[in-house]
Amino acid sequence: MRRTIVGVMGPGGGASQKDLDNARRLGALVARQGWVVLCGGRGAGVMDAVCRGAKEAGGLTVGVLPGDDAGGASEAVDIAVVTGMGNARNAINVLSSDLVVACGMGAGTASEIALALKAGKNVIVLGDHPEAIVFFRALGKGRVTVARDSDEAIAAARRLLGR
Amino acid sequence: MRRTIVGVMGPGGGASQKDLDNARRLGALVARQGWVVLCGGRGAGVMDAVCRGAKEAGGLTVGVLPGDDAGGASEAVDIAVVTGMGNARNAINVLSSDLVVACGMGAGTASEIALALKAGKNVIVLGDHPEAIVFFRALGKGRVTVARDSDEAIAAARRLLGR
Amino acid sequence: MRRTIVGVMGPGGGASQKDLDNARRLGALVARQGWVVLCGGRGAGVMDAVCRGAKEAGGLTVGVLPGDDAGGASEAVDIAVVTGMGNARNAINVLSSDLVVACGMGAGTASEIALALKAGKNVIVLGDHPEAIVFFRALGKGRVTVARDSDEAIAAARRLLGR
Amino acid sequence: MRRTIVGVMGPGGGASQKDLDNARRLGALVARQGWVVLCGGRGAGVMDAVCRGAKEAGGLTVGVLPGDDAGGASEAVDIAVVTGMGNARNAINVLSSDLVVACGMGAGTASEIALALKAGKNVIVLGDHPEAIVFFRALGKGRVTVARDSDEAIAAARRLLGR
Repeated sequence: MRRTIVGVMGPGGGASQKDLDNARRLGALVARQGWVVLCGGRGAGVMDAVCRGAKEAGGLTVGVLPGDDAGGASEAVDIAVVTGMGNARNAINVLSSDLVVACGMGAGTASEIALALKAGKNVIVLGDHPEAIVFFRALGKGRVTVARDSDEAIAAARRLLGR
Repeated sequence: MRRTIVGVMGPGGGASQKDLDNARRLGALVARQGWVVLCGGRGAGVMDAVCRGAKEAGGLTVGVLPGDDAGGASEAVDIAVVTGMGNARNAINVLSSDLVVACGMGAGTASEIALALKAGKNVIVLGDHPEAIVFFRALGKGRVTVARDSDEAIAAARRLLGR
Repeated sequence: MRRTIVGVMGPGGGASQKDLDNARRLGALVARQGWVVLCGGRGAGVMDAVCRGAKEAGGLTVGVLPGDDAGGASEAVDIAVVTGMGNARNAINVLSSDLVVACGMGAGTASEIALALKAGKNVIVLGDHPEAIVFFRALGKGRVTVARDSDEAIAAARRLLGR
Repeated sequence: MRRTIVGVMGPGGGASQKDLDNARRLGALVARQGWVVLCGGRGAGVMDAVCRGAKEAGGLTVGVLPGDDAGGASEAVDIAVVTGMGNARNAINVLSSDLVVACGMGAGTASEIALALKAGKNVIVLGDHPEAIVFFRALGKGRVTVARDSDEAIAAARRLLGR
C-alpha cells in the first residue's frame, strides 16, 4: 500500500529557467508513473515548479517544510509536513525518498545529494552541473547517475527503482 | 489544494483494546471528512489501528516514522515520512497537524500533547485518562477538549476546524 | 573523561520567583558536584537562572538553543549548541542528560519530562506541582522523584547517579 | 562568557593517515587558542583524532552524536550532546560552530560543508581535495578558504574570526 516516493531537490532562489522547466516536466512524469513527488515544499523555485508539474498531471505532492508552519508552502503541495527545523529537514527529505533527483544546484541541494549518498540512496543529477557531477561521482561510488533532461531522468528512475 | 491533516497520537505498545477500537473508528471518521490521517507511522498499537481505519474508509494516511527507514511502518501507511530522529519526530507530528487527537496514553503521547500545546494547537483527548486530563487542561488554557468516544472526537474536530 | 550532565528543564516565561530561586540554587549545587548544567539555553526564566547559579559556583553550562543562532542565549551559557529546530530540541536536551530535573512547569517542560521518561531517564520534579506529579508518577513507573527544594533535588541526584 | 567554537568535520571511516595527523594537530592548535572543539563525536577517524589533539593540549571538546546514547563517543569527548537523529545532526554541528573546518572528505563531511555554506558560515577546507575545492568554491561565493596544513588552517581561522 505504501507509495513510491521520488524526492526532487533543487534551489528555491537562483534556479535557472531551464531548471524550472526541467522540474515542472519531471513533476508531471513522476506523477504519471503513479509515484509521489516529495520536495522541500516552499513556494519558490524548483520546489514550487516540481509540485505544479505533478499536480497538472494529477499527482500527489508532499512538501517537507523548514519553517514552523505551512505559511510559505507552495500552493501545489497537498501534504505539508511542517518540521520547524530549517535545513536539518534536508535529512528527512532524502530518507523519505526511494530515489533522489537533484534538479538545479545550490548549497541546500548539495547537502541533500551528500546526505542521500551518506544514506546509501541513488541520486540522479539532472542538468548541466559539471563540477558537481565530478565531485559527487567521486563520492558516490556508482550511485550517481547523470541525466540531461527530465525524460532521461525518468528513464533512469524507472531502471533504478526496478519499475 | 493543501489537505487538512488530523494528527492522531497514541501508544504503539500498551494500548488497550478500547484505545485500538477508538483509533480504528476515528481513522474512518477522519477519512470520511476528506481529511488526511497523520500519525507516528509504526505498525503497532494506535498508530496501526488509526491508519487501518482510515484506509478501510478510503482515506489517505501519513506516517512520520522515528527510524532510519520505512521498515517498521504500518502496512496501512500510504506516505512514509522517514525522519531517522526517534522521538524528536514527535515535534513534527504536531506541527504538521491542523488538530491533534490523543487516543490512549503513554510517555510518547504525553510528549505530543505537551508539544502541541506549546505550539498553540488544539488537542482532543479521547478516552478515559482522568489524571492526564486534569494536568493538560491546567496547562492548555482552553485548548484541551475531552471526548468520550470517536464520534464525540470528530464532532469536536469539526467544530475546532470550522468545517 | 566524559562529564556528567544534569539537564535542568523549566519555563522561559511564566516561571515563579520560587522556581527562579530554586533554579539558581540548583545550578550552584550541580556545579559544586563537578557536574555540567545543560538546559534550553535561552536568556529567560529557569534556563537563565540555572546557568547563572552554575557560573556563580564556577561551573560549566551548556545551552541547547531552539533558534538558528545564539542570539537569544543566556549570558551565562558557556557552550551554545545551536539546533535551529525549535522544540524538537527538547528531545536532545533529555537524551544528553544523565539525569533530568524539572524546575517549574509549562508545556515545554512537560514535553521534556515525557520525552525523558520515554527515553528511560530518571526525572526529579522540583517544586509544588501536584497535578504534574500525579500524572507523571503514573506514567513514569518509579522513575519520577519529587523534591521540595534544591537541596532535596541534589541529594536525590547523587543517589540516582550513584555519585 | 560564551566560548568560541570551531567545528571540525571529517569522516569516521575512510580517513587517511594524513587527515588523522592533520586533525590531531588542528585539535591542539584550536585548544591553544582557548577555543572549544566541536565535532560529530564518534570514537573514530577525524572526530576521534581532533578531540584527542584538543585534550592533549588541555582543551574542551564537544561531540554532537548521531545515536540515542553516548555509547560510541570518542573517549576524548568532554561534553556528549546526544541527538538521536543520525545525520540530521550535521545541521546542528555547523549552526553551533563559529567557523567550520573540513578535514578529510566523505559524504557526511560534504553535507556539513554544504549546510555551513547554506547557513552563511565560513568554511576552511584542510587537505588535498581538488574536486571538492572546485565545487565548494563555486558554491561558496568567497566563504571557502583552502589550507594545506593545520598551521595554515589555524592562521585562516584567526583571521576569519578576527581574533
